[in-house]
Amino acid sequence: MNANTFGSLLRLTTFGESHGPAIGGVLDGCPAGLPLSEADLQQGLDRRRPGQGGLASTARDEPDRARILSGVFEGVTTGTPIAFVIENTDQRSRDYSAIKDIFRPGHADYTYQAKYGVRDYRGGGRASARETAARVAGGEVARLILARGGVKVYSYTTEMGDVPAQCMDPLNAHTRPFYAPDDYVVDIWTDRVELVRSEGDSIGGVVCVTATGMPAGLGEPVFDKLDARLAYALMGVGAVKGVEIGAGFSAARNYGSKNNDPITPRGFASNRAGGMLGGISSGQDIVVRAAVKPIPSVAKEQLTTTTSGEETTVRVGGRHDACAIPRINPVLEAMVCLTLADFWLLSGRRI
Amino acid sequence: MNANTFGSLLRLTTFGESHGPAIGGVLDGCPAGLPLSEADLQQGLDRRRPGQGGLASTARDEPDRARILSGVFEGVTTGTPIAFVIENTDQRSRDYSAIKDIFRPGHADYTYQAKYGVRDYRGGGRASARETAARVAGGEVARLILARGGVKVYSYTTEMGDVPAQCMDPLNAHTRPFYAPDDYVVDIWTDRVELVRSEGDSIGGVVCVTATGMPAGLGEPVFDKLDARLAYALMGVGAVKGVEIGAGFSAARNYGSKNNDPITPRGFASNRAGGMLGGISSGQDIVVRAAVKPIPSVAKEQLTTTTSGEETTVRVGGRHDACAIPRINPVLEAMVCLTLADFWLLSGRRI
Amino acid sequence: MNANTFGSLLRLTTFGESHGPAIGGVLDGCPAGLPLSEADLQQGLDRRRPGQGGLASTARDEPDRARILSGVFEGVTTGTPIAFVIENTDQRSRDYSAIKDIFRPGHADYTYQAKYGVRDYRGGGRASARETAARVAGGEVARLILARGGVKVYSYTTEMGDVPAQCMDPLNAHTRPFYAPDDYVVDIWTDRVELVRSEGDSIGGVVCVTATGMPAGLGEPVFDKLDARLAYALMGVGAVKGVEIGAGFSAARNYGSKNNDPITPRGFASNRAGGMLGGISSGQDIVVRAAVKPIPSVAKEQLTTTTSGEETTVRVGGRHDACAIPRINPVLEAMVCLTLADFWLLSGRRI
Amino acid sequence: MNANTFGSLLRLTTFGESHGPAIGGVLDGCPAGLPLSEADLQQGLDRRRPGQGGLASTARDEPDRARILSGVFEGVTTGTPIAFVIENTDQRSRDYSAIKDIFRPGHADYTYQAKYGVRDYRGGGRASARETAARVAGGEVARLILARGGVKVYSYTTEMGDVPAQCMDPLNAHTRPFYAPDDYVVDIWTDRVELVRSEGDSIGGVVCVTATGMPAGLGEPVFDKLDARLAYALMGVGAVKGVEIGAGFSAARNYGSKNNDPITPRGFASNRAGGMLGGISSGQDIVVRAAVKPIPSVAKEQLTTTTSGEETTVRVGGRHDACAIPRINPVLEAMVCLTLADFWLLSGRRI
Repeated sequence: MNANTFGSLLRLTTFGESHGPAIGGVLDGCPAGLPLSEADLQQGLDRRRPGQGGLASTARDEPDRARILSGVFEGVTTGTPIAFVIENTDQRSRDYSAIKDIFRPGHADYTYQAKYGVRDYRGGGRASARETAARVAGGEVARLILARGGVKVYSYTTEMGDVPAQCMDPLNAHTRPFYAPDDYVVDIWTDRVELVRSEGDSIGGVVCVTATGMPAGLGEPVFDKLDARLAYALMGVGAVKGVEIGAGFSAARNYGSKNNDPITPRGFASNRAGGMLGGISSGQDIVVRAAVKPIPSVAKEQLTTTTSGEETTVRVGGRHDACAIPRINPVLEAMVCLTLADFWLLSGRRI
Repeated sequence: MNANTFGSLLRLTTFGESHGPAIGGVLDGCPAGLPLSEADLQQGLDRRRPGQGGLASTARDEPDRARILSGVFEGVTTGTPIAFVIENTDQRSRDYSAIKDIFRPGHADYTYQAKYGVRDYRGGGRASARETAARVAGGEVARLILARGGVKVYSYTTEMGDVPAQCMDPLNAHTRPFYAPDDYVVDIWTDRVELVRSEGDSIGGVVCVTATGMPAGLGEPVFDKLDARLAYALMGVGAVKGVEIGAGFSAARNYGSKNNDPITPRGFASNRAGGMLGGISSGQDIVVRAAVKPIPSVAKEQLTTTTSGEETTVRVGGRHDACAIPRINPVLEAMVCLTLADFWLLSGRRI
Repeated sequence: MNANTFGSLLRLTTFGESHGPAIGGVLDGCPAGLPLSEADLQQGLDRRRPGQGGLASTARDEPDRARILSGVFEGVTTGTPIAFVIENTDQRSRDYSAIKDIFRPGHADYTYQAKYGVRDYRGGGRASARETAARVAGGEVARLILARGGVKVYSYTTEMGDVPAQCMDPLNAHTRPFYAPDDYVVDIWTDRVELVRSEGDSIGGVVCVTATGMPAGLGEPVFDKLDARLAYALMGVGAVKGVEIGAGFSAARNYGSKNNDPITPRGFASNRAGGMLGGISSGQDIVVRAAVKPIPSVAKEQLTTTTSGEETTVRVGGRHDACAIPRINPVLEAMVCLTLADFWLLSGRRI
Repeated sequence: MNANTFGSLLRLTTFGESHGPAIGGVLDGCPAGLPLSEADLQQGLDRRRPGQGGLASTARDEPDRARILSGVFEGVTTGTPIAFVIENTDQRSRDYSAIKDIFRPGHADYTYQAKYGVRDYRGGGRASARETAARVAGGEVARLILARGGVKVYSYTTEMGDVPAQCMDPLNAHTRPFYAPDDYVVDIWTDRVELVRSEGDSIGGVVCVTATGMPAGLGEPVFDKLDARLAYALMGVGAVKGVEIGAGFSAARNYGSKNNDPITPRGFASNRAGGMLGGISSGQDIVVRAAVKPIPSVAKEQLTTTTSGEETTVRVGGRHDACAIPRINPVLEAMVCLTLADFWLLSGRRI
């Protein structure tokens, strides 16, 4: 059982509630000898922080500074656990007292109450997306491990609301709003988000995470297939409701003769498999997609009950994003980085 | 690391190659006092065996009799590991010698070779779907554990090829060919499969697995969310390329105000979340879907290489199914049963 | 693999180096609803802190205040990870620069260098006994879990140097210097420690940890026997070189007819088994003993080499204890508490 | 949680009861490319089988033939799980019906009943020493992995009853009765065992397991120290009540200045640490000792109760050993082999 720990040889344990003193994590199993500083973690945190998404993003301005407490000596990892803490400086607990006795629809209020009997209702507590900052910090270390082996992980948004992009330039998506994979879709998505926000509503989207430079041979059949662990990694992010590998659901609508990737002396002739066969990487690019649900916090009135079971309605106002994209992108990348770096180490490869 | 072991408190370890002496499994963590016989395992195995799928299914007739070696005394489980073995009686190794030196497209031949350096090429070896028989046997024990708590798991096929069903009567799907959820689609799917088979090709489909009678409170945030573990479970089945929870990818195309399930004093007013929020079961039905790729073994000529890298073509004839559905359905059910029974025990519930 | 994480359902991950910014831990799996405050953790830390052992103890005065960062809301655990941090306020790195290029005999300098290639040489870094403060803090939570079930864990010292105690009043040992189990031995041990310290040397001893109020039925055969997990727990404390359950090594010198504990209608007539049979608790008191080696840091001159392999000598002066007892006692208790509380939860018992 | 599974990357799961259909195991994580046959497993099983110990040993003659079911193809491991089964051919259940309703002192009858509510009373069921045959079979594979790296594991008996040996020739102990480490003690131990057996009693002893050819750097601080994992491994063998590393309990009675192993340019000048420091191997020989309790099955009359709580007496006659030594020696070696091979793989070393 892992619960708040992710990984086998490279294990990230996260902790913290949205409005508690701090959030953070402990990354165990990072090889010794990797140059690492707080600035490395900050890169990912800055990409995930509020305000990055332009209109889609919350107004809450949390600095999100990770302080490294252990595992690094003279600028280099020592092989011991790397602990880091991010203080919750902008807590504003008062914003949330109104929802103390209400189950917000689409949130985990009801189920946390059912499971634990008590619950930190402030800003979602542990179920807040704020927890993912610790994943991003840990994921940046995994990214550095992979970089040593020539593996590069990036993401791009293929859909927002129900507006797909053309994905003509995915490698530079991180330079555009919403991690848009082409220039043309940016304005359309901006308009879409503005409209939705003005209506007090929210939208979702689809994010593709890709890894290049992968060696063949990573993955552990039968249950710890590379596909299975990636699905576990991405579906463990709160807003994700679907995961696809390679052709995904469209593979289910294809013929076997067309879905198979032909093998040639120069390598595979296509990559409908998404970079893995039988749970083991094939040396092609890893391609996974995650369906991101619309943020459940909407200003529109919603039907719900109080914690004591009485009918009521709720409007979740305040400083909420209209879409989890693009702030969720670094989180999804982090989960892929952590998964791939774990398999990298499991394969006996070093850094 | 788990590799060939699945689960936390209820752990199934499977072993065996398609054409080795036997396949089987060890189920550890089953509570004592559960009535269990070989006939219980056989129920699942019979549903998974060749010939069940009518036209879709292979001609290979493997009896698949599970023999229990341990963990049961006087008809009742004792709390010790339940080992079971299924002998491989119909091996016919000669059928496979032709593909010894070839990488079959869409199969794991290439990646197993890359990872392990050696490979049991007979019938796919460990990567054969035959391995899933052990999952089914173990899953039947999990099903009995869940039954004690009033949880029932069943599946139905929502799509074959690109032909969707109407899903008017999913509860009785197991009584129809292809686990069809309504009577009308059966003939259409039968024709579809016949045509594809006659063309030497194959198709895939989508299977929905549902659990009724679920208590609220199962699941372990943040990484071991119920959603995450179900995705891991289903994506760990060879042919699965996508997994959705509840509304899945369509949630990504919806508005927050519409995707949230309203809460009423009588319970949730809808189940777009698929029975879980924040990684914890809500007490509603669990709803997960798996995209099943078309079987890669097709009689049509495929471009590939020999193991020494020379260009060649291959036709994979023989006793292959034209679609993994319906034989994959009991496997997907088994994976859901194992996952839910594991969380059942993790919650401290007894049988 | 666990490395810096201990436990199955109740999992303590510790982090931190002796002279890094902080040490601490994350305790995952603690049930919700347990009243908990920083004062609870402090109780154990205060018992472990320097100065508790009278003459045996180091002069370094570290406040060791644990700050809880998560998992507690309104004074009660929420079921989410409990993270705590203990800042390293009294670091004095200058004390240790002299040993930067030397392998101290009996310490982990050589092996950390061999394993990791780099090493935080300040005060032993991760291998410092200071790390155990985090175990004590986590162990106090486990102690509270056990207390809910009526289980009480305490320790007493049965030997110091080679001077055994009479163990006439072990329950009150925590009120005496050295956790002495009778009044008579205190002066003798005090003299012994004074003498050894004056000679620039150190001694070890034997500590017995006992649990009362145990239910029968805890433990998980065959590999996770209660005995095995306790041995793992105690041998994982740096200074421990031997572990015994019940009669221990003396059982090996006894007859079967005399070593067996007779069973009577009133219960077991003796407890040579130490409270467990076949890896499962019998309902009797748990009795385990740990052999604690003399502290390797001695002021006497020791033969060693530099990190580049040249012969040299070293005197490890400074603020070191002359004996790990009594500061190790709360650590050993913590490890037993964590082990028993883990099995408590594994048995499906609640708090 | 592991229960019936041992190890991290190299994982042995065992199953089976003394008088069920079969016992066996599944070894997962063995690297591909290792030549392996059933004869390799048989070597260990033959050393463990009844009759090896001369007078000390039971008359039961179980062939103990391991059949490999998977994981080996054309004489070489494939990286997939290696399952093996040992049929229980000589069951004689009738011998045990007399003890069906009695708790045998020193056995696990009482605690299994307390934990599981049901119990296979035939010959101890799962708690029978027979289970260890599966450990020996799995351990032989681990031994072959270690042999590839030049590591050799052997054992010798240092004490039987309370008669110590001189340990002049431990390397050849396996060629002598009782794994005696010198010629002189053989006759004395033989007389001792004969006498004890004639009295209807039993004795225990102490076994030392040693590994030569170890590299420095194996082990995973802080909880998975090499010492901790070895203690866990050995204390998980039913009859073991104490474990020592290196000087063990005698270290607790020594001075720090004398207990430290001096380091010289030629290596360590002594090995009181038993081959590890700070939980990491030092490159010296691994030295661990296990205290083996006298076999609880004695023909002398013992006080006990029936399962319904009535006072009674029991004589456990039949085909029992008078001492677990030497049959336990291969089991202890197996546990050390499995532990070291696991750390070998965890270090990223290959075979």
